[in-house]
Amino acid sequence: MFFEGSEKKIEIIVTQDTPSLRSLGRPFWQSMVSKANAEILSSVSNEYCDAYLLSESSLFVWDDHFLMLTCGTTTLVHAATLFIDTLGVEAIAFASYQRKNEYLAHLQASSFEDDLKLLREKISGKAYRFGHLDSHHHYIFYSDRPYAAEQGDITNELLMYHIGGETAQYLTSSRQTIDGVRQRLQLNQLLGDFAIDDFLFEPFGYSVNGIRGKDYFTIHVTPQEDTSYVSFETNLDLTKQNVDIFATLLHALAPGAWDVIGFNAAPMTQDYPAHVRLGQCSLTMEQGYALHFSHYQRCEHQYLQPTEL
Amino acid sequence: MFFEGSEKKIEIIVTQDTPSLRSLGRPFWQSMVSKANAEILSSVSNEYCDAYLLSESSLFVWDDHFLMLTCGTTTLVHAATLFIDTLGVEAIAFASYQRKNEYLAHLQASSFEDDLKLLREKISGKAYRFGHLDSHHHYIFYSDRPYAAEQGDITNELLMYHIGGETAQYLTSSRQTIDGVRQRLQLNQLLGDFAIDDFLFEPFGYSVNGIRGKDYFTIHVTPQEDTSYVSFETNLDLTKQNVDIFATLLHALAPGAWDVIGFNAAPMTQDYPAHVRLGQCSLTMEQGYALHFSHYQRCEHQYLQPTEL
Repeated sequence: MFFEGSEKKIEIIVTQDTPSLRSLGRPFWQSMVSKANAEILSSVSNEYCDAYLLSESSLFVWDDHFLMLTCGTTTLVHAATLFIDTLGVEAIAFASYQRKNEYLAHLQASSFEDDLKLLREKISGKAYRFGHLDSHHHYIFYSDRPYAAEQGDITNELLMYHIGGETAQYLTSSRQTIDGVRQRLQLNQLLGDFAIDDFLFEPFGYSVNGIRGKDYFTIHVTPQEDTSYVSFETNLDLTKQNVDIFATLLHALAPGAWDVIGFNAAPMTQDYPAHVRLGQCSLTMEQGYALHFSHYQRCEHQYLQPTEL
Repeated sequence: MFFEGSEKKIEIIVTQDTPSLRSLGRPFWQSMVSKANAEILSSVSNEYCDAYLLSESSLFVWDDHFLMLTCGTTTLVHAATLFIDTLGVEAIAFASYQRKNEYLAHLQASSFEDDLKLLREKISGKAYRFGHLDSHHHYIFYSDRPYAAEQGDITNELLMYHIGGETAQYLTSSRQTIDGVRQRLQLNQLLGDFAIDDFLFEPFGYSVNGIRGKDYFTIHVTPQEDTSYVSFETNLDLTKQNVDIFATLLHALAPGAWDVIGFNAAPMTQDYPAHVRLGQCSLTMEQGYALHFSHYQRCEHQYLQPTEL
């Protein structure tokens, strides 16, 4: 039972004179989510943000920008083109579209190159691959219209593959509870003052969105043995937290390999589990985003067993 | 201009009372090669073996077994099923089918799982994956009929990704010659007493088959930047050579990553370039083959550049 946990992601910032994206209302966002072949499960809101938990990941909508992540075999690029068609390209200040490293790219509905063709019919931009094709690699497209990133516009992404240890076992067990998962992910210690909205899937899998003012975080757990994947993403400045959030999650989930992607955020590796860095790559985007990608592998990686097919 | 250098491979040993496979004649082997969507370019023969150089890799035919390797988007599994259909499953003493780690699996005509379905319609057997899906991984199917491997039935495979240095530059240059390639691969020093048959492709790419008695070696060079791949395979016992062939090739071609697969042959890593072993996996096959797989990465791997798309 293979499920592709790794996500595709769009983030679009609209121009100042565009009406609030939140005022587009739930039916519009529902149609965006359907276009990607996902569904809204629940939501949480505050003064600044509506956060939707999806059957396959998350959607965050602020007044002037939105962020949508979908996993599995969803077709997120169609949501991106729907958005541009609906608001018009002149309303787009900045758009980016990412695809994370996939376990089984050949099972996806499209390749990044296919997605790129559709995007470039709507908006011009640049596209890059980070990392070698025979190792972890990520794709990004971003619009090339003039735009200047706001001060403090940070994104931190931690993508964990092959989780291990007691937590990994718990996350695939039939005795897990939503409280048990929250505890093992240490949500209370790490991000206790966020309003959260979470969901425990059957027979396993867990998603959580959290918001606090304009800040957000999201975690998605695909614990299936052999192709397990857990992602964490936030716009928090990780250098200013009381706890090293990435390091804590890495120790809790004990992944065999992990990728760190930062926009205007450098990796802080000192408290990571013992590791080797297998690859790293950086890009300075004209709009004021310094993009950094690093791929790590745990040092004491297990001796692999052949997988019978 | 992407070309998938990594190979699929079949090796079939026939029962003792089967007529010599060499007596099936060139038209039969030509039809086997066409079935895989490849062509015979040239051949070299000795008392024991007919070695065919193909448009996409190699075919070696001995009296009681054959070995066929094809790269690109060839459909080698169809050659395997043609062979079994032609000779009948009772003539098969042992069959194995491998797929090496691919750069772009989604561009292949079939997945290993697809190939497995076709094979299992013809002959029963076991199948395994070696290595995690998000890192280098290899597939093998092998028949489960009773068979005992002959003493000294050894295979050594070295699969090099992202070659570097002066040799890599030479192999994509327009000034390369067939003699120049032979010299850079040190064929004369490493394997000087083999009869060789080689081909330099336009605008680049090189293949060589070599035979000496029942021994063979083959090298295939796909030097395209960003997806370069060089494979070496032989049935020589590498522990009994004057030179460490793998280590010599690794120093000459300076790959960023490489895989070693051995059947009844353990890796000898002491003279490899400085490296980390990213994964290893072993399997004992009932017929008397100890299969070993290791994935290595060079320590001083380059800082990667984003690839513009």
